[in-house]
Amino acid sequence: MSSAIPASVTRLIDEFSRLPGIGPKTAARLTYYLLRASDENALALAEALRDLKSTTRYCSTCYNITEQDPCPICSDAKRDRGLICVVEEPLDVVAFERTENYRGLYHVLHGAINPIEGMGPDQLRIKELVTRVSQGAIREVIMATNVGLEGDATAMYIHRQLHSLVRLTRLARGLPVGADLEYADSVTLSGALDGRRDMQE
Amino acid sequence: MSSAIPASVTRLIDEFSRLPGIGPKTAARLTYYLLRASDENALALAEALRDLKSTTRYCSTCYNITEQDPCPICSDAKRDRGLICVVEEPLDVVAFERTENYRGLYHVLHGAINPIEGMGPDQLRIKELVTRVSQGAIREVIMATNVGLEGDATAMYIHRQLHSLVRLTRLARGLPVGADLEYADSVTLSGALDGRRDMQE
Repeated sequence: MSSAIPASVTRLIDEFSRLPGIGPKTAARLTYYLLRASDENALALAEALRDLKSTTRYCSTCYNITEQDPCPICSDAKRDRGLICVVEEPLDVVAFERTENYRGLYHVLHGAINPIEGMGPDQLRIKELVTRVSQGAIREVIMATNVGLEGDATAMYIHRQLHSLVRLTRLARGLPVGADLEYADSVTLSGALDGRRDMQE
Repeated sequence: MSSAIPASVTRLIDEFSRLPGIGPKTAARLTYYLLRASDENALALAEALRDLKSTTRYCSTCYNITEQDPCPICSDAKRDRGLICVVEEPLDVVAFERTENYRGLYHVLHGAINPIEGMGPDQLRIKELVTRVSQGAIREVIMATNVGLEGDATAMYIHRQLHSLVRLTRLARGLPVGADLEYADSVTLSGALDGRRDMQE
């Protein structure tokens, strides 16, 4: 077996296998694909990986991933600077920007409280959020952590830190677009019931 | 949207998306995972990618991927040098080596005849196989191309080139281990019937 696979091939398979959701079989398939692809393909990926770390940093205000500090969103004068949307991950910012329906700022926590995985409040950017809010000029903080145990625990923890300083809101719970009532889980359905609104013409 | 994602992040997402079986969502997930991972992780992957191309080449005898030429299998004196197993891909060699039941040599075609994808016999290492067999000392060539239209067409093409020079065999067709007869496709079942053998104690 070992004689059939060169060391550099094994190494790339190992490195790919470390990525989330990529098992040894997929890692081997990707590696052998790159072996057959042109040199430029593999080198472009290698370069993009190197640049990822060397050109990006965290925004010192909102802790989103950025190439300039403060990030384009924090330095955009047209944004509502009194509104902060608190999210777990940079990809959540991308999801909100995609809606084109939010013009405030963000705060990226980089995770959620999860005692089982050893993730406590100190590993998240919560201290920085409290400082940011304490400095004033913030009108509202929207909690947009994921829906679930960890996200809700994180939102509650932040609520306790901030409720005396600022208005805190959270995203509506309810049925997603395309939901089939028959298959909706009871927590979602009960949340949708609690949050029901008067119908308007 | 564009302001939320730095250029170097977009670039890595694009590069990941080029890989087979990796869509834009998976590519984004991998990229943001690497952003959070330690610098060493991303750099190790970048380095492994670079080395993959710089340290590997094709064995000039069997065309398997190797770091030395001839490859460890071709230069192994304990191998049966009169037996060649013809496979489509380097990963097929790995599969055979894993069985620990084959002690001959290999010949890697790097694909199969597939007119729809513009893959003709000239794009494969068939000429090299014919030369290798013509030089003599080969007792038997085992056709181990994939089971299916392309693999079978490739095997037939090679058969026409080599049948006057050497004994040609192909892998047995039949039911795989764990197969449920009820769900076996008719081609497999009919192949298993044609290839039936006398039972032995």
